[in-house]
Amino acid sequence: MAFLNDNYLKLKAGYLFPEIGRRVKAFCDANPESAQRLIRCGIGDVTEPLPPAALAAMHCALDEMITRETFKGYGPEQGYEWLRHAIAQNDFRDRGCEVADDEVFVSDGSKCDCGNILDILGPQNKIAISDPVYPVYVDTNVMAGHTGSANAAGAYARLVYLPCKAGNAFIPEPPKRHVDVIYLCSPNNPTGAAATREQLEAWVNCALEHKSLILFDAAYEAYITEPGLPHSIYEIPGARECAIEFRSFSKNGGFTGVRCAFTVVPKTLLLVTKGGETQPLHPLWLRRMTTKFNGVSYVVQRGAEALYSAEGKAQIAGLIRHYLGNAAVLRDGAKRAGLKVFGGVNAPYIWVRTPKGVTSWQAFDQILNAANVVITPGSGFGSKGEGYFRISAFNSRANAEEVARRLQELKW
Amino acid sequence: MAFLNDNYLKLKAGYLFPEIGRRVKAFCDANPESAQRLIRCGIGDVTEPLPPAALAAMHCALDEMITRETFKGYGPEQGYEWLRHAIAQNDFRDRGCEVADDEVFVSDGSKCDCGNILDILGPQNKIAISDPVYPVYVDTNVMAGHTGSANAAGAYARLVYLPCKAGNAFIPEPPKRHVDVIYLCSPNNPTGAAATREQLEAWVNCALEHKSLILFDAAYEAYITEPGLPHSIYEIPGARECAIEFRSFSKNGGFTGVRCAFTVVPKTLLLVTKGGETQPLHPLWLRRMTTKFNGVSYVVQRGAEALYSAEGKAQIAGLIRHYLGNAAVLRDGAKRAGLKVFGGVNAPYIWVRTPKGVTSWQAFDQILNAANVVITPGSGFGSKGEGYFRISAFNSRANAEEVARRLQELKW
Repeated sequence: MAFLNDNYLKLKAGYLFPEIGRRVKAFCDANPESAQRLIRCGIGDVTEPLPPAALAAMHCALDEMITRETFKGYGPEQGYEWLRHAIAQNDFRDRGCEVADDEVFVSDGSKCDCGNILDILGPQNKIAISDPVYPVYVDTNVMAGHTGSANAAGAYARLVYLPCKAGNAFIPEPPKRHVDVIYLCSPNNPTGAAATREQLEAWVNCALEHKSLILFDAAYEAYITEPGLPHSIYEIPGARECAIEFRSFSKNGGFTGVRCAFTVVPKTLLLVTKGGETQPLHPLWLRRMTTKFNGVSYVVQRGAEALYSAEGKAQIAGLIRHYLGNAAVLRDGAKRAGLKVFGGVNAPYIWVRTPKGVTSWQAFDQILNAANVVITPGSGFGSKGEGYFRISAFNSRANAEEVARRLQELKW
Repeated sequence: MAFLNDNYLKLKAGYLFPEIGRRVKAFCDANPESAQRLIRCGIGDVTEPLPPAALAAMHCALDEMITRETFKGYGPEQGYEWLRHAIAQNDFRDRGCEVADDEVFVSDGSKCDCGNILDILGPQNKIAISDPVYPVYVDTNVMAGHTGSANAAGAYARLVYLPCKAGNAFIPEPPKRHVDVIYLCSPNNPTGAAATREQLEAWVNCALEHKSLILFDAAYEAYITEPGLPHSIYEIPGARECAIEFRSFSKNGGFTGVRCAFTVVPKTLLLVTKGGETQPLHPLWLRRMTTKFNGVSYVVQRGAEALYSAEGKAQIAGLIRHYLGNAAVLRDGAKRAGLKVFGGVNAPYIWVRTPKGVTSWQAFDQILNAANVVITPGSGFGSKGEGYFRISAFNSRANAEEVARRLQELKW
């Protein structure tokens, strides 16, 4: 008898975004006219065209595939050296962070990497996540058997939840109790908060003291606008001994449909075996990548490389300006609607408090039905997200302005 | 203290192909002149240009990315409906196999899928693999903790090895003892053997009787030339109740550098929970894909779809003819060199017995040093591969002819 992985049976309902998709589809089927004016600010998906530099590089790369002399088959599983070099140089060394080319692992998505990283970690780790949180961190730990069952509020036994509230500016403090693995996301999805240097220093010091591992998700790094905020965990002394960093081209280069991301695993990062010996984690991730992955499409890697050219960087800057401009419009609209607003300055997400007595899903339904706008209910990100909703700034300017207008017309 | 996954420490040496890469690099560094005439018949990587139909479709898809009206962001994680439909219709329903569109999951590689499928299986399964075998099946089970340690011969405790020898035409028989999960690969990598209908029927019947799961790797399906051989496990009655099939565009469409594959999980396939209840596996794989994956690049999926057009099919047929033509040349050359030869008729691999008293790695070194040709040592695929080597037919015709010539000049 072949057995399935029972841990999957502990998962609550659907993954958040498919669930939203189902509700929106039901609404559109029932209200075909309103569906015409629907504006989606739910899932954090980019809307603007691909940077021309990336597009041109991908066309060129495709044309290499047409003759056997320039054809590219399997590449290195962990990414081509020229892309790993461009990443390490531009995103880290040029900013004063020590990251070697071969500490960069190119992948097809940060969501994949955030999930797959658990492959190389032991089952005995005590895992801490913030609440609210990107659901992938939680669900992949459930699947891997690192949790017990969920309670009525959807919280899983054996996970340590770190509350993020207006009181701590939505950045969790290190917990009093010992944890082995900590997920941090800054700029944060869903709250739009960005950690300060002091906050990250506190986390790195805590991790070093407890020999814990920080999984640092910096997928929205490009949206940091305020000076002084760290762009990488490796700006903090000691981080090379305790942190893995996830980055993506999805939200800066608009690669959500193109698929490219990367993960940094410093060679100085040591973890512990069951027997108590310390060993570097880098060889384990390399082994995982070479055994269970076959590299990112050559054409896509050439597109990612082009994002580091002068044109590519200027085009990314234009995209970021556009989306953060939307964020400003949405923040303003929500404030004028009398709502309490967070985020949207160093991140493409606005985190909005629901009117008194309105739950997150009630707000979702109300905004969908009355304003024909799709947002994301805060409770979908965890129990501490209840009473909030997230508005994504990924849209055209016209749509952002229209959403801002409709929010002000809403009767609660 | 953060713990690593101790199972990784059980893995023997490097994954086979990186190990070959290291040896070849050492040879080339030491012998720069011989390196000039090196011919690679090691790793099974395609060499011929991408089918023009796929290339044209990918250029078009890229150009959709240039305006916001046609831009594509996140697609469905499990693949676009039009590609899942093309696959199910062409590869299965048109051949009389019942496979629904939503039983097809598009991914970025069969190697990934073969490894990731273990995510949804329980740790208590008894796993059977053939010997010799594609190393990924073994290594991913080691990583997942489904094995004990390896013995001196490299065989892992708790795995059931099914010997493939000339005596059983390199297709294993169902074992006498009970197993829960069986990996089958046909046409076979590395031996080039293809299972007959009777052989697959025996396996399906055995799996139904024992409620076992067959993981059927058909990445080389396009190379089947002999009439009567099954192209899919789903040609066998009952397979929808016991089998998952892996397919790839790597070896038919030359997509090793482009990255696209798919896996079929029938909705009628039930597995058992710890508590002994049966449950369908399909929702678990769907949940895994939506949670830990973000879909294949849109551009790549359009390329894969084009392989099902009339032009695409004709271009694939041309590629297969080319590589199988090489295989015939290589078979002939090895035979003339006095070697005993298998495979190469329904597969792009020739499986060659080493001369008496010569081990697989000795043959590898001799062929590298004296003929400047890279092959793959059979023992790298398992202990029963000792005394064989694999020649890949993925090459230009000129190179295949040159390798055939050099094999005949070798002094053993």
